[in-house]
Amino acid sequence: MFFPQEFSFFDEFEEQTACAVAASALFRELAEKGCVDAADLDRMRQIEHKGDEIAHTVIDRLNRIFITPFDRDDIYSLTKEIDDISDMLLTIVRRVHVYKVQGQDPNLLEFAAVIEESVRAVERAVKGLRNHKVVGKDVMDACVEVHRLENAGDAMRDAMLAQLFETERDPVRVIKLKEIYQDAETVLDICEDVAHVVQSILVKQA
Amino acid sequence: MFFPQEFSFFDEFEEQTACAVAASALFRELAEKGCVDAADLDRMRQIEHKGDEIAHTVIDRLNRIFITPFDRDDIYSLTKEIDDISDMLLTIVRRVHVYKVQGQDPNLLEFAAVIEESVRAVERAVKGLRNHKVVGKDVMDACVEVHRLENAGDAMRDAMLAQLFETERDPVRVIKLKEIYQDAETVLDICEDVAHVVQSILVKQA
Amino acid sequence: MFFPQEFSFFDEFEEQTACAVAASALFRELAEKGCVDAADLDRMRQIEHKGDEIAHTVIDRLNRIFITPFDRDDIYSLTKEIDDISDMLLTIVRRVHVYKVQGQDPNLLEFAAVIEESVRAVERAVKGLRNHKVVGKDVMDACVEVHRLENAGDAMRDAMLAQLFETERDPVRVIKLKEIYQDAETVLDICEDVAHVVQSILVKQA
Repeated sequence: MFFPQEFSFFDEFEEQTACAVAASALFRELAEKGCVDAADLDRMRQIEHKGDEIAHTVIDRLNRIFITPFDRDDIYSLTKEIDDISDMLLTIVRRVHVYKVQGQDPNLLEFAAVIEESVRAVERAVKGLRNHKVVGKDVMDACVEVHRLENAGDAMRDAMLAQLFETERDPVRVIKLKEIYQDAETVLDICEDVAHVVQSILVKQA
Repeated sequence: MFFPQEFSFFDEFEEQTACAVAASALFRELAEKGCVDAADLDRMRQIEHKGDEIAHTVIDRLNRIFITPFDRDDIYSLTKEIDDISDMLLTIVRRVHVYKVQGQDPNLLEFAAVIEESVRAVERAVKGLRNHKVVGKDVMDACVEVHRLENAGDAMRDAMLAQLFETERDPVRVIKLKEIYQDAETVLDICEDVAHVVQSILVKQA
Repeated sequence: MFFPQEFSFFDEFEEQTACAVAASALFRELAEKGCVDAADLDRMRQIEHKGDEIAHTVIDRLNRIFITPFDRDDIYSLTKEIDDISDMLLTIVRRVHVYKVQGQDPNLLEFAAVIEESVRAVERAVKGLRNHKVVGKDVMDACVEVHRLENAGDAMRDAMLAQLFETERDPVRVIKLKEIYQDAETVLDICEDVAHVVQSILVKQA
């Protein structure tokens, strides 16, 4: 009963981060395309839904299994935070669709690239957990990268908002883009939260 | 000392959900009336305050009592989430008052009806906890209903925001209504959070 | 190994609240000055960064130390919530800078005074924890003061938003100031969250 679970948790975390990477790649594809139609939104919904199901499986097992590879609270936080990445990306894509924001926006494109980079670093960090005694340094490097990208994202968002307030004459467009840029930065905050959990797990195992 | 507490927790959860139902009924009444004056706001404040006091009692007992009818963390989450329902309804009603949004808004009326339905399903789910071995299926049905209404609410909000951005010429009115519609959908999210806690309790008891 | 830690936690909480007080004093200074330049923002960042480092130390010790002066969850919540005070003040100051809001705003000045008062009450409450058997009543009085100021802040924000919506003709300025006033009120909510944790610690020790 409690022999192979340890591996399952790691497998599930990896599947979950694979969903987050897929969501970030789709987000970049849509930022390049410059609009979101109903079919695009549906693709993002499916990715998010798949990630959601994995998170539910993890939490369900956590409630039933006695021996876990690390602290129960950390498993719970990890699965929740990874889930939040695709969730927020879906929120952004839905806003772009509902608000009918159209045309390639260089700001959104820039954010999409940084987000994908950060989610891929999250993937490396989470993948290394399984084998942290050997690859602990790589895990830590990936976490540092996530923190660096979050800082970069803060500065990006601030510059974009300053420019938006100065140049955009249509207040309704200001409302729409302000929310979307702030949400985009939030994705990087969530990635940083995942990195924090990963680091805390490593500290406790040390 | 630890004999009758089990019943107290259930009694208090039921009183708390009764407050949430009262808040959702008042919200619908005010949406029908089409404005919120100081006396209306005060009525909502009193309902919220009563719910808040019950939540404090629950948390206070949780800190003092050794034996609880189910997992302490779940009791804590349940009381917090139920409390958040009336809290968010008060926030919305206060905004309608402070922002001086006047005249019956069919969107808000539609949201109020769905919110009341969802809060009543939450009430059925929470009421069934006491007796879950007999009425477990009814509890699960009520939770499914809450999830269905949350999905419906997402679609409603999106349609309303799309319409608002397209038809409303006054940007300040866009700012006000956008926030109120998003908050209304958040009430349905909170109901869904309650349903998640209820389901997790049932899983652990199974 | 586990003898002197008890004192360390208290020392660190006090250093953390000292950072929060410094942040609230700087916020008031900037509200009086009526603008935020890059150097001001940097000063706030340094205060926030120092508080952040203390929070990390607390959490790191919590993961390593077996005996703690009170409930581990409460230590975690306390350090997180105190940290959130400077965090939110940095967010506000950054917005004022990025949004180029200039000129002394009596509303912001009023909020800054109430925030500083509340953070100083938080400081008294947290300082009393170390010695709560003797100064328990002072701790409770400080918590009551924090709750009173949060209520006052709600009313202040509502009055300011009502006035803003009625008198400000520039919708983009409405967007900026609305967000800043709401964030200012959030600082008082966070102070209240700290007070709740302090009260819950006292209840458990009673």
